[in-house]
Amino acid sequence: MAEEFVTEITKKSEDFSEWYVQVVRRAELADYSPLKGCMVIRPYGFTIWENIQDALDRRLKETGHVNAYFPLFIPESFLSREAEHVKGFAPQVAWVTQGGDEILEERWAVRPTSEAIIGYMYSKWVRSWRDLPILINQWCNIVRWEKVTRLFLRTTEFLWQEGHTLHRTHEEALEEVLRILEIYRDLVENDLAIPVITGKKSPSEKFAGALDTFTLEALMPDGKALQCGTSHDLGQNFSRAFEITFLDSDGQEKHAWSTSWGVSTRLIGGLIMVHGDDSGLIIPPRIAPYQVVIVPIFYGQEQEEVINKARELRDLLKKSGIRVLLDDRDEYTPGWKFSEWELRGVPLRLEIGPRDLASSEAVLVRRDNREKRRASWEALPTVAPQVLESVQKSLFDRAKNFRETNTRESEDFSEFKKIMEEKRGFILSPWCGNEACEEEVKAQTTATIRCIKDEEPSGKMCLVCGNEAKFLAYFAKSY
Amino acid sequence: MAEEFVTEITKKSEDFSEWYVQVVRRAELADYSPLKGCMVIRPYGFTIWENIQDALDRRLKETGHVNAYFPLFIPESFLSREAEHVKGFAPQVAWVTQGGDEILEERWAVRPTSEAIIGYMYSKWVRSWRDLPILINQWCNIVRWEKVTRLFLRTTEFLWQEGHTLHRTHEEALEEVLRILEIYRDLVENDLAIPVITGKKSPSEKFAGALDTFTLEALMPDGKALQCGTSHDLGQNFSRAFEITFLDSDGQEKHAWSTSWGVSTRLIGGLIMVHGDDSGLIIPPRIAPYQVVIVPIFYGQEQEEVINKARELRDLLKKSGIRVLLDDRDEYTPGWKFSEWELRGVPLRLEIGPRDLASSEAVLVRRDNREKRRASWEALPTVAPQVLESVQKSLFDRAKNFRETNTRESEDFSEFKKIMEEKRGFILSPWCGNEACEEEVKAQTTATIRCIKDEEPSGKMCLVCGNEAKFLAYFAKSY
Repeated sequence: MAEEFVTEITKKSEDFSEWYVQVVRRAELADYSPLKGCMVIRPYGFTIWENIQDALDRRLKETGHVNAYFPLFIPESFLSREAEHVKGFAPQVAWVTQGGDEILEERWAVRPTSEAIIGYMYSKWVRSWRDLPILINQWCNIVRWEKVTRLFLRTTEFLWQEGHTLHRTHEEALEEVLRILEIYRDLVENDLAIPVITGKKSPSEKFAGALDTFTLEALMPDGKALQCGTSHDLGQNFSRAFEITFLDSDGQEKHAWSTSWGVSTRLIGGLIMVHGDDSGLIIPPRIAPYQVVIVPIFYGQEQEEVINKARELRDLLKKSGIRVLLDDRDEYTPGWKFSEWELRGVPLRLEIGPRDLASSEAVLVRRDNREKRRASWEALPTVAPQVLESVQKSLFDRAKNFRETNTRESEDFSEFKKIMEEKRGFILSPWCGNEACEEEVKAQTTATIRCIKDEEPSGKMCLVCGNEAKFLAYFAKSY
Repeated sequence: MAEEFVTEITKKSEDFSEWYVQVVRRAELADYSPLKGCMVIRPYGFTIWENIQDALDRRLKETGHVNAYFPLFIPESFLSREAEHVKGFAPQVAWVTQGGDEILEERWAVRPTSEAIIGYMYSKWVRSWRDLPILINQWCNIVRWEKVTRLFLRTTEFLWQEGHTLHRTHEEALEEVLRILEIYRDLVENDLAIPVITGKKSPSEKFAGALDTFTLEALMPDGKALQCGTSHDLGQNFSRAFEITFLDSDGQEKHAWSTSWGVSTRLIGGLIMVHGDDSGLIIPPRIAPYQVVIVPIFYGQEQEEVINKARELRDLLKKSGIRVLLDDRDEYTPGWKFSEWELRGVPLRLEIGPRDLASSEAVLVRRDNREKRRASWEALPTVAPQVLESVQKSLFDRAKNFRETNTRESEDFSEFKKIMEEKRGFILSPWCGNEACEEEVKAQTTATIRCIKDEEPSGKMCLVCGNEAKFLAYFAKSY
């Protein structure tokens, strides 16, 4: 029965994208809805999101940010005020044209991002340099009309946070952009155990309306990059479009400098892909809904004693702050439960059976490498967190090792194309900075510049045109 | 300067609704947006919402509920499946008719409530009695096209939580409906310090598609009732409309029994109205963004010493788990700060000046009754929480006393009309149960049945028709 349960899943190593969809649905992370491109995030998946929210919200509040809530809708004329912005987002907008039986005179966009409505409100609130900085974040839903969608990775509606800040000087704004990039890196690497490279986007890939976009890019097991978050230096573009000015201490009226930044439920897609294996999900302990699942093993008359002890151990672990589930359902065998909780990615399994009662011990099994060890009951509050930390670290190290193995350098376009064809991954190459060369790479390989490395190319020549390189850029195919 | 600041506000006792709007905007709880009927919840107001969310989410999780996220949109045909439901909500729907440049074949409703989309998903997920109960909640935004709006109390878009549960029997569903009603009562009375009466709605006032609606009703200072939350027994209406069936242990396929329930950002409007006074807001300590504001008082050279001590006291209070703000801005006088934080409703002010340095004391001033007391620094971690608890209790007692004074009984329609004209408030009256009599009261007084008391009318006669009463009903004008 246990075996049946597992063999129903396509192997990650055989058909990665089919494995992905099956794991998401079978682990009850999410499901398709009857609305094209919109998903339902089920409780198990939503708990991962809540844990990500907690981890990020704490970091944002520690650095002086506060939450607020702005309207879901943006009048069409507002979206149009910043020329690049509307060009980038209008094709993706869902439009409300009727309210009750009233036809609207002006269409309302369902927010594809909130710079426009927030910029308008900021222009009403800011008067003096003493009002700055403004450091506001909002957690909300976003709608972008997508042609091709994939659970968590690209959906018509998704959840995210979007920070929108105002500053007195460009220096302060840029500091904020990089502070947030570092907070995101810390979150993604330390809580989600996903290693990332960070850097600036090329002009063609930056946010519509930004001066510069900084990004976090992770490598997926199929060799494609996943953009995990972005932080934008908006310069004074939106301040000019929405007339956000302040009276500075020198008596001059000035335009504020603004930033925006966001991460979304897409992160959940990233962690599924990076950590999972043929048996299903592996969720990093720091954001796992359940860090430990207790499976009692009993036959006939020992049942009560085993279950009572399992309950005691659950309470013991709970008291030490561990998120723990006792699976005491009696309609499933222990083997079936092992498979189910492996599929659902619980990082640590605790088994307790009749033999363990005599020795006052339990068996701990790691999800990532299936390593088993015994631990005495009284040692559990110490041992379990240690093992969980070790799982967390191993997941990160494994992913980082994969990323490093699959990050190559190339200064030769033929070689570059061969690597991109056969192995994918990141390729670090010199680039002259011209969009034509970037386009040529995309046309021939579908790879794009994921980000620019913060390092001089020191005399190297552009991969495509052979002229002097201005940048070292990470190229990859991407989601 | 301090006086100027305060006199700018209309007095609550003189023009209640003007006072309300001014307080909401001047305290920076919320602001109007350029979208008709949509508001912006500013950080100070949103923190109140976050504290309400924390308080309720904890209670819901303790009783086995989990969070999830369902799509923002509902296809028009889904909304129409339950006849009463669509009749009730269709006139209030905002419709998405275009995505990008594509005209939709079927309009998408922006959710006015989510029974329809959730019902559809539940029909896919539930198979066996072992899958029940399903106890899912979601925190989200809701859109209802409103003609007349008022900040927090009635807005086109608002935030809420909506619970949607499925049960094996009607008894279990009804238990859930009442369990939630009690959780809401506990939240509203103990955290928001707003006394409520609870009971069943009359058929004309129940949720569109429900068998029965239970409600919490609070009395506002202008004598009008505010509905603070509802909990619906949906019977099998939605299970039939969406074919939510399960195989019971007796081998029979049965329709599940469902409930839904919600509270919204409207609660914030309630607490503003109930507790505020002529000087502005008074926020109950348990949900106040800042429970204590420290205002240092200094002249010239003592400044540094006073501020250093103020910082120490802030850290001391923070360490005891109190939400505290130190207002160390030097561009405002202490008097101005007193007025501002009174307007913004911080329940307890701590003053520290040069004289207090010598005596190692500080002055505590309650917002609700302006009572002053001195406390030694070392006693603050004990004294401050006690004073805060006392403020919390006083606010509730004051509101309860007002509610009791303004709850009258009447069995005579002329007397009833006179009270409703001159004093408003709740009137408890016998009612025969016929909609015609309910309508007559509404036509002549605009008052409606807010809820039915859980008590037999024991031989009394209907207020309107004089026939035998079946119910004792609380009547009131309402928001």
